[in-house]
Amino acid sequence: MKISVLNIGNELLKGSTANTNLASIGQELLKLGVPPIIQMTVNDDPNDMKEAIAYLEKRSDVIISTGGLGPTTDDITVEIFADYFGLKLYTDEKVIEHIHNIMGKDKILSVHNKKQAIVPVGSTILENRNGTAPGISFEANGKLIFLLPGPPSELIPLFKENVLTSIRSRLKEKVYFESLYTVGIAESELQRIVSENIKENQKLYIAYRAEPGGCELTFSSPMEILVSEAITKIRSVLGLSILDYGCKNIAEEIIKLLAERKMTLSLAESCTGGMIASKIVDVPGSSKVFKGSVTAYLNEIKMHLLKVKENTLLKYGAVSEECAKEMAEGCANLFNTDIALSATGIAGPDGGTSSKPVGTVFISVTFHNRTLTKKFLIKGDRSRIRIRSTAFALNLLRNVLLEIS
Amino acid sequence: MKISVLNIGNELLKGSTANTNLASIGQELLKLGVPPIIQMTVNDDPNDMKEAIAYLEKRSDVIISTGGLGPTTDDITVEIFADYFGLKLYTDEKVIEHIHNIMGKDKILSVHNKKQAIVPVGSTILENRNGTAPGISFEANGKLIFLLPGPPSELIPLFKENVLTSIRSRLKEKVYFESLYTVGIAESELQRIVSENIKENQKLYIAYRAEPGGCELTFSSPMEILVSEAITKIRSVLGLSILDYGCKNIAEEIIKLLAERKMTLSLAESCTGGMIASKIVDVPGSSKVFKGSVTAYLNEIKMHLLKVKENTLLKYGAVSEECAKEMAEGCANLFNTDIALSATGIAGPDGGTSSKPVGTVFISVTFHNRTLTKKFLIKGDRSRIRIRSTAFALNLLRNVLLEIS
Repeated sequence: MKISVLNIGNELLKGSTANTNLASIGQELLKLGVPPIIQMTVNDDPNDMKEAIAYLEKRSDVIISTGGLGPTTDDITVEIFADYFGLKLYTDEKVIEHIHNIMGKDKILSVHNKKQAIVPVGSTILENRNGTAPGISFEANGKLIFLLPGPPSELIPLFKENVLTSIRSRLKEKVYFESLYTVGIAESELQRIVSENIKENQKLYIAYRAEPGGCELTFSSPMEILVSEAITKIRSVLGLSILDYGCKNIAEEIIKLLAERKMTLSLAESCTGGMIASKIVDVPGSSKVFKGSVTAYLNEIKMHLLKVKENTLLKYGAVSEECAKEMAEGCANLFNTDIALSATGIAGPDGGTSSKPVGTVFISVTFHNRTLTKKFLIKGDRSRIRIRSTAFALNLLRNVLLEIS
Repeated sequence: MKISVLNIGNELLKGSTANTNLASIGQELLKLGVPPIIQMTVNDDPNDMKEAIAYLEKRSDVIISTGGLGPTTDDITVEIFADYFGLKLYTDEKVIEHIHNIMGKDKILSVHNKKQAIVPVGSTILENRNGTAPGISFEANGKLIFLLPGPPSELIPLFKENVLTSIRSRLKEKVYFESLYTVGIAESELQRIVSENIKENQKLYIAYRAEPGGCELTFSSPMEILVSEAITKIRSVLGLSILDYGCKNIAEEIIKLLAERKMTLSLAESCTGGMIASKIVDVPGSSKVFKGSVTAYLNEIKMHLLKVKENTLLKYGAVSEECAKEMAEGCANLFNTDIALSATGIAGPDGGTSSKPVGTVFISVTFHNRTLTKKFLIKGDRSRIRIRSTAFALNLLRNVLLEIS
């Protein structure tokens, strides 16, 4: 089955928004073994749209279109598709009711509101829980067409609940898939390791999705055994580089490990300045194990709150193994936690020296009167150094927690 | 001038990476008044690529292609474009030298490395400071073609330094542009205000780029006077909703306002958990005015570090006007700063009640023994509530600072 994607709307071409819809659609379709083979973006222009539809129709069995379903006059997706495929339009009363449900029962609908209820005769309405524009699907010229709204909050649920099911039911073979999440391995390195151990072929698809510090790896196949074999194999090769079952990012696993060990956590941040805390607090339920954090950005605060010795700062500087160690230890005392993590470094653009260039970062974890400190040298701009420092810090914390049984 | 973009690489179609290159290219071209009119994504497949080139060539004067310039055998962009336009290839010695400069003088280049130095006869080499693949431009069939590497860190500098200059020099008219940054106004509201005051037309282009809590607004025109008139007009309408000159985000302006007023800042975060601190620390030079922050996630820490009264927590709860106020005041004392900002709220998914639903957030700013507290009700999931809380908190802080002369 050949699938193509048509994204409609000048906000994509003008760069006011990045096309995350294609990535979301691609990730889900890849798990079924049918990633899109081609994608186009066009303006809300009748001629441009029709030419794109013709191009995609010739080359694919399914066209998934996004955008141009809004209430205003420049939203012309439905009209253009109907015109192209020679379909009549009608006003669907159930959609009118849905618009009332979303906008309020008493609201008197304008001609613009009602426009969203005009759909092709014979099409299937896909209910949009998060907006007034319905999703629409129909078959024409032997092709399966989906018209979906552009905002990701509306598109993604509609796509997952309706489009995927519909495509899956039409695949000759059922497709099985399973994902796992790795940490501490660069995507290119992960690809190398996976390709050395598992051969991608027409019966087994491999997908990667990288995030700072981690990667989602998905195997999919019409043969369930191939997926489970690949998962088993790669688990044996990667071992602890794979997150625990049910955890989709390292912060989630850290919260889980802390809860299992009945331990509490606190953080002392300098260059990362709240970024590590933010990752931890992002996890629902983190309040059960995370007590709090200090961003000790000035030396004065490092001394006053975290009890870093003045002599340490004078002798070694704030960016040093000694300071990182005292920050972590002072933090565990301040918050009275079982374990504490600290990060101090030079994020730039200024402040680097020949012995301590921009990107020098020290990370410490203290637990049970033992403190482990590591030095990192990170290339890139201020933002990248902070993001990578946060990833390295969480990774070090995870490794320490895994060693505590 | 009609410009199209061709993105090559299955990682975009498989969804392992979102197409941020199109957004970056679109934003820059829009400022020149020539946003892309069409964009396509294809796999590294000779037939798919040639069909896409033919489609775009027919409809545009300039094709900007990204991706497929790597050293491996599936990177075939140069060969396919050369073949399509009937251009011969040769190995460019200057590119070989460049590859040596990037990889190390002593490195013996493999056949894969050397492949990146094979370029079309008569093409212009665009030096890639951040990678081995050179950018390439040439003219053929009356069209201007750019072949650029896919990684954003390589593409964006090449695009800004070479492609934009080249396109600008070919525009019949010089295009002037100026941007300003707004805060505290939703993008749709901003669009409404702008459209009521300024008419977009063929001589004046208006571009928007939204971020959480703010928006970049750009006017561009071949007539400089139209840009300056639009800027003046919109400044008079929006007033303080526009950031100070030279500031590209609200945190930058806050640091500037604090420095001008010779004031120091500290933060006390609960639900935002480090996110506000991280925005502040993102700004280079923030250490001059930002002393530090506490994430007081547990009540115990709110009492112990920020001296929130136990009675306040028992009587009003941690998510209350009273607690937010005491957090801010305790924070100013703890860090000994002129001004302190606090945020406490229910980010969910659990913890909401009928009187305090998920999304209830209190934000306080304290300055000179005066404390201002505001209540917000934010819809959405945990992540959105935290991001919006951070934007509201920075906005409140900015407004207080603007009132302090």
